[in-house]
Amino acid sequence: MKILGIDPGLRITGFGVIHKEGNKLTYIASGTIKTPDADLPQRLKTILASVGEVVQTYRPDCAAIEKVFVNVNPQSTLLLGQARGAAICALVAADLLVAEYTALQVKKAVVGHGQAQKQQMQDMVQRLLQLPGVPGKDAADALGVAICHANNRDVLSVLGSMSPDLVKKGLRVRNGRLIG
Amino acid sequence: MKILGIDPGLRITGFGVIHKEGNKLTYIASGTIKTPDADLPQRLKTILASVGEVVQTYRPDCAAIEKVFVNVNPQSTLLLGQARGAAICALVAADLLVAEYTALQVKKAVVGHGQAQKQQMQDMVQRLLQLPGVPGKDAADALGVAICHANNRDVLSVLGSMSPDLVKKGLRVRNGRLIG
Repeated sequence: MKILGIDPGLRITGFGVIHKEGNKLTYIASGTIKTPDADLPQRLKTILASVGEVVQTYRPDCAAIEKVFVNVNPQSTLLLGQARGAAICALVAADLLVAEYTALQVKKAVVGHGQAQKQQMQDMVQRLLQLPGVPGKDAADALGVAICHANNRDVLSVLGSMSPDLVKKGLRVRNGRLIG
Repeated sequence: MKILGIDPGLRITGFGVIHKEGNKLTYIASGTIKTPDADLPQRLKTILASVGEVVQTYRPDCAAIEKVFVNVNPQSTLLLGQARGAAICALVAADLLVAEYTALQVKKAVVGHGQAQKQQMQDMVQRLLQLPGVPGKDAADALGVAICHANNRDVLSVLGSMSPDLVKKGLRVRNGRLIG
């Protein structure tokens, strides 16, 4: 089973794809989608098209997305909500079932407790997926969501295979195209 | 020029299509999209598919959507943001340019001042589009957004033609299909 994890954001959306077979988890891909410095509809269009491109490329069997924090600034909450809505739209448009997890659930699944810092998440994602390099913050969060979903359905164990360079760099999506 | 106006919401999304020729505005269609009592991804899927169906059916040249209020409840703000994001996704996926107007701008454009009540909006939308019946609240708001956009680009004048029954009932979208 292939699981796509998404860490949504208006400026940067992280994505991570892992494979689960029995209790083995394998890294497939991860990266970030950066939106242009444009008006809101154009940014949402980028998220919709780019998450769609990730889905078309990796053909996951299911998806999981992080539940976002309610920000102290209501206007930021509204913007983040719209970005998250766009990411979910790309997933449901491809008929994927979408699970939702809070940051707390993801941290517990990956690090073992809810007070984990960004760096701990990155380190644990690297260890759990046996990555040769530390993934970026947003990609690590997205891979964490995918791990949380895998974990949620069965006992967790891991197996990895990936070139160190690609893991460090991660993938990016520009104008709806994946770039290495 | 055909203009699609959208009044976004998680439970009910209003839509209204008007035609503008010179300074004449003509009513084409309006209605509401109701989401099922399901989880968030399914509701967003309904909004995405149904607004997409409206776009496919009426082929507007451009679209306008209401800027939503930041709610006192941050969780509601987040939900509304996601619904609005889904509606915008359906518009930009069809390569439509999307204009955004605040409720204040819409009220000023339709009623003439920003303190207008729902009923006044409905009455003025009926008058401006020479509708034989009063449109529903959500459809009236969506038509108001379309009028605001038409108004914003040129001098406003109106012309209407529509069966009284259809205007009163409005259209609804169920499972991605428009129903009379």
